[in-house]
Amino acid sequence: MRIFLLPPDFCGQETLTLSGSDCNYIVNVLRLKEGREITGRDASGKTWLLTLTKIRKGSCTLSVREVSETPQTTDTLPENRPSREIILYQCLPKGRKIDEIIKRATEMGVRAIVPVRSRNCIAEANENRTTRYMAMVKEAVQQSGSLVPTEVTAPVDIKDVPLNFKNTYCGEKGFFFHQNRLTETQRNLLQALQGTAGPYAVIIGPEGGFTDEECELLMAGGFEPILLKTNILRCETAALYAVAALQTISESL
Amino acid sequence: MRIFLLPPDFCGQETLTLSGSDCNYIVNVLRLKEGREITGRDASGKTWLLTLTKIRKGSCTLSVREVSETPQTTDTLPENRPSREIILYQCLPKGRKIDEIIKRATEMGVRAIVPVRSRNCIAEANENRTTRYMAMVKEAVQQSGSLVPTEVTAPVDIKDVPLNFKNTYCGEKGFFFHQNRLTETQRNLLQALQGTAGPYAVIIGPEGGFTDEECELLMAGGFEPILLKTNILRCETAALYAVAALQTISESL
Repeated sequence: MRIFLLPPDFCGQETLTLSGSDCNYIVNVLRLKEGREITGRDASGKTWLLTLTKIRKGSCTLSVREVSETPQTTDTLPENRPSREIILYQCLPKGRKIDEIIKRATEMGVRAIVPVRSRNCIAEANENRTTRYMAMVKEAVQQSGSLVPTEVTAPVDIKDVPLNFKNTYCGEKGFFFHQNRLTETQRNLLQALQGTAGPYAVIIGPEGGFTDEECELLMAGGFEPILLKTNILRCETAALYAVAALQTISESL
Repeated sequence: MRIFLLPPDFCGQETLTLSGSDCNYIVNVLRLKEGREITGRDASGKTWLLTLTKIRKGSCTLSVREVSETPQTTDTLPENRPSREIILYQCLPKGRKIDEIIKRATEMGVRAIVPVRSRNCIAEANENRTTRYMAMVKEAVQQSGSLVPTEVTAPVDIKDVPLNFKNTYCGEKGFFFHQNRLTETQRNLLQALQGTAGPYAVIIGPEGGFTDEECELLMAGGFEPILLKTNILRCETAALYAVAALQTISESL
């Protein structure tokens, strides 16, 4: 279900005039015609019914109506939505791979994406990119109708990941994936998730993987190495694979 | 671990001269220099050590040596590889999304990708694309070192999917994912996979999803609707989500 994220300063007015990227999204991406309706969501998560009343060059006007029940649209919201928070710690991959990861992780309902600097990262962490990342998140939320307010945070160093997870997300269960046995007692994801509740963290390495010291450091910080029976995955595939696996299993237990 | 898939007519000769796309892969994609080694795999799955001896304009020569043990390379093959066969029935999505799905599914070790025509497909099935698809599979196998000989088959109609799965892959456990409850007894993936063995089939709908009749038809053919607690996913994300979930859980049980 596509939704439209209302501007942060929206406070229940009956008509709304949009310009810039918001107008572009309504008119050119969704290709709504005058008279058509779309569901809006405000910053508090409340749902509104929007009717496109006028398209002008560079701007458009919507009438806004409060909805008490779920609005009728072509798609429906799923009965079942993810209930466990997942934090994705993503070591910075090369080039624009991070864009793809952000879009898909948002779509899957990841709570936060934290870019991580690690030894084998070739890409530079760049604080200025956060604005661009948040625009991608917004697009993916609007497209998927996700009810999770996904955020992309400022980059952190890998040594600070366990503490960041504890302090920012009150998290205890962190994982990283490894295809060769690191410890005698290494478990698979199903075993590791039995009897746990979220939030969960998963950290995904860069193209060159983690160094031995980084694995030690993660384990010392309470991150459990999970044995994964799959092929060697590209780092962008690995991120989505990990989130999908973590979400399906944790939501099924 | 990157590997090089030896030409189908390779039969153990001591030197090998490559041209065209194979030469391009070695020289321009992998950027191997003269004297460097790479692992090759022949059509039977046997491993060979290849040394790049000469680069010429448009061709290159490799010396070939039999290896009895696992060759030393920068990466190592994972101890644990997927052991359950997964067949991905993919209703044709719009545009080039199928390319992405083929590449990633191959990377994850899916046994076969079967393009499917269904009611809400906008894209046309095109038998002529099979060659292009197989080139993508080859690239993804070489990049991931996957030991699964993934294939992309000719397109089938959705009504023929259950029979295709039974006859071609001797399969019994087929699934499709649904976010709203279709039957009273609908299970999640973990419940549905308990006590089963592969091969598994999963069918992914096109952008508009399955029609009610298609759901009926799949269920009548033994495909189980699985309740998925996630957001509404784009169809290319859904394919990878489903494969990741199916593989992790089935390999963990």
